[in-house]
Amino acid sequence: MSKGDAKDGFESEHQMVIEQIRDRIDPDSAEREAMQRVMSQLRNRITTEVESFPVSADVVQVGSTARGTWLAGDRDIDIFVRFPTELNREALEEYGLKVGSSVLPSGHEEYAEHPYITGTFEGFEVDLVPCYDVDAGSELQSAVDRTPHHNQYLQTRIDERIAAAVRVLKKFLKGIGAYGSDLRTRGFSGYLTELLVIEYGDFEAVLKAAARWQPPVEIDPEAHGTAAHDDPLIVVDPTDPARNVAAVCSATNISRFQHYARQFLEEPKQTYFESPTEMAAEMDIETVRTHLQRRGTSPMALVFDSPDIVDDQLYPQLRKSVQGIRTALETEGFDVIRTAAFADDQAVLFIELMHRHCPAIERHTGPPITVREHASEFYTAYETDADTYGPFIDGDRYVVERERTWTDAAAFLQSESIFNAGLGAQIEEALADTYTVLVEDEIIALTSEFGESLTQYFEPTASGV
Amino acid sequence: MSKGDAKDGFESEHQMVIEQIRDRIDPDSAEREAMQRVMSQLRNRITTEVESFPVSADVVQVGSTARGTWLAGDRDIDIFVRFPTELNREALEEYGLKVGSSVLPSGHEEYAEHPYITGTFEGFEVDLVPCYDVDAGSELQSAVDRTPHHNQYLQTRIDERIAAAVRVLKKFLKGIGAYGSDLRTRGFSGYLTELLVIEYGDFEAVLKAAARWQPPVEIDPEAHGTAAHDDPLIVVDPTDPARNVAAVCSATNISRFQHYARQFLEEPKQTYFESPTEMAAEMDIETVRTHLQRRGTSPMALVFDSPDIVDDQLYPQLRKSVQGIRTALETEGFDVIRTAAFADDQAVLFIELMHRHCPAIERHTGPPITVREHASEFYTAYETDADTYGPFIDGDRYVVERERTWTDAAAFLQSESIFNAGLGAQIEEALADTYTVLVEDEIIALTSEFGESLTQYFEPTASGV
Repeated sequence: MSKGDAKDGFESEHQMVIEQIRDRIDPDSAEREAMQRVMSQLRNRITTEVESFPVSADVVQVGSTARGTWLAGDRDIDIFVRFPTELNREALEEYGLKVGSSVLPSGHEEYAEHPYITGTFEGFEVDLVPCYDVDAGSELQSAVDRTPHHNQYLQTRIDERIAAAVRVLKKFLKGIGAYGSDLRTRGFSGYLTELLVIEYGDFEAVLKAAARWQPPVEIDPEAHGTAAHDDPLIVVDPTDPARNVAAVCSATNISRFQHYARQFLEEPKQTYFESPTEMAAEMDIETVRTHLQRRGTSPMALVFDSPDIVDDQLYPQLRKSVQGIRTALETEGFDVIRTAAFADDQAVLFIELMHRHCPAIERHTGPPITVREHASEFYTAYETDADTYGPFIDGDRYVVERERTWTDAAAFLQSESIFNAGLGAQIEEALADTYTVLVEDEIIALTSEFGESLTQYFEPTASGV
Repeated sequence: MSKGDAKDGFESEHQMVIEQIRDRIDPDSAEREAMQRVMSQLRNRITTEVESFPVSADVVQVGSTARGTWLAGDRDIDIFVRFPTELNREALEEYGLKVGSSVLPSGHEEYAEHPYITGTFEGFEVDLVPCYDVDAGSELQSAVDRTPHHNQYLQTRIDERIAAAVRVLKKFLKGIGAYGSDLRTRGFSGYLTELLVIEYGDFEAVLKAAARWQPPVEIDPEAHGTAAHDDPLIVVDPTDPARNVAAVCSATNISRFQHYARQFLEEPKQTYFESPTEMAAEMDIETVRTHLQRRGTSPMALVFDSPDIVDDQLYPQLRKSVQGIRTALETEGFDVIRTAAFADDQAVLFIELMHRHCPAIERHTGPPITVREHASEFYTAYETDADTYGPFIDGDRYVVERERTWTDAAAFLQSESIFNAGLGAQIEEALADTYTVLVEDEIIALTSEFGESLTQYFEPTASGV
């Protein structure tokens, strides 16, 4: 069967672009053979090692390499070693690290729900993760125990035709910046991508469906969903009726996918498949200056040392913090046009204001005068306040013009008051240590470390990258 | 009967203040006699003059002097000469002017619905107005024909006790800036004041009722109202079931009356009865400067020659114009904190802005991406626009940041664009002739002509004066 046969009814122009992409991303037979050979070696080594343990354990290859859905050049092999549930957690961790260190002597320990070993083997990046051999649908001992079930469910449903479509969809999602379930990206996971292709049948069918999605969209392959989810996209996990596989997907990424699905259906282009790392450009100082000049806004940046936490902790905290500070500024009467958060060695909470300064007074409208008790309280509160204009009457209400607490947003950001905003815990600690506020033109100082982030900020596109 | 006898149950402290006011505003017997003597002379002269006409006509004294509700020192006498309805309008006007000029040889012609003569006689200001003798309740030929009916209705219902209460209420309304049905004030007319006292019984009862008003308040003394009125206070005219006597009252003035009614009931003070002219102070340049400094806002003033129209035309047009310009500025993204309009030889549309300048860009949020057709139109409209940032995706919507049309409110006010705002017709003409825009500190130039208005603006009180 040629690659094109399954795409009945899809226009040849689209088909041509997809073929061009497949030429780049389909692993060739040499790559597949190398992968199989390496996996076979790993499996043998692990099995031998496990035989020395006083418990039995089996070896399960998981992830995209197990399902043939990896993109050419990906070198990631994920192996789970499943121990019986009788084994206590300490022993599981001990055996898990022992087999990992033995098979991947140059590897090192990392930590998800258990510690595991990650290392290179014959040029491949291998994760060797211990887990419990729980029954599908039974109580999980930890989230990683779910992974082998995903694998089992998918193995019988992903043939080469489906796998090819999954690869194209993954490449597309990467190209538009919507691939990855990490908490920085909040996009589509590999597993979700696979389930979507299985659900709709092929790449184009997924795009055609997505182009018409009216969130909330609910997909329940096994028709066994038990929980209500407050998410725009709900794909019930075939191996766990209470779980939404798409829970981490942000509304923006779902909209982004919808947008590019329509764009591609209308006019197929290879550029939609170009991933951010292929496209990103560092913004130079002159370009930043030009944007500042052109926008006429008042951007401000809180800059501080990135706390030493993983990205999945860091980015949610950065988002929470910048939103908290935005809300605090808005409460003080400042208008915010856009915000962002960047992180590298330093972290940046970036807030672009309409104006740096507000007038010294703010209008404060009281209750309707007919509501006698409240109205009287309001009047009495301000009647003798020399710092307040009024109370006077406008229509059916009392009005005063009060002194504003903060007339300079930069002064607010430099003050202790920001600690009353909703901040992520580790961000709050980092700010309490020390931080700098860059105001307006001073933000060009960010260019050397955050040139790429500034490009994304000042030259925003639908893909966000 | 002593003056206090009728005020059963009202506290002596309040009573004392009212007595003090009555000492100042109740006409004494000499004044009453002078008024009667003058009126008698006028009536004789008019009757004699009318006898020379080929039609009969009677003489009706109307207004506060007819009902004994005038305040001591008021010198206004209103006399209507009623002609039969058979007389055509031209003849009515001719006879009306003739009798007026003859009785008030030093008078001059003015114009309400008909021309009439106003002049002084023995130290009194006399209006001599011709009208038709229509039956009560029948079709009016003009609004002035209603006045004699008001008089007839009130004569039997206003005794000296009621008249005294009306005087106190009038003085109170004058003191709080809410007296007068002219279209500058939009307050309580004399007739409305009289009807309120008749309805509630005395001054204090009116205040107690007003303190509890929950607009819309409906009073229909003759229980014959036929029309629906969209006004906060509705007092159906006892002589015209379709008319709301309080139609001209603004919500602000009704709230103002409610506020001061409560204030007086809580703590009676003579100051509530002090009229604006007794209180007004011209603001000096230094004080204006201090307020500008203290407020930190961007006030702007359009200054032009007052059009040569009566106040009842001028003030509604000024209000409409300043509101129209406010709306236009807000549409362009400027935040307005307060507006006012002043008039003397020059007229002023005064607009106080939060900021003079806005950034060069403005956020413009598109439709939800799920609404495919609208979303696509939006995306297509901006996709290739080099002057626009985006479209990018935020949540479930497209967003762009567009170039703003106006970044300087002063430039907007100096441009032809203000003529697209909703302006009063004669104001538009006056502005088309020529106008000046004063910006921020330049508004101190208003101090010499509008010192009192600036006091009202920069030192606002519940009374607005």
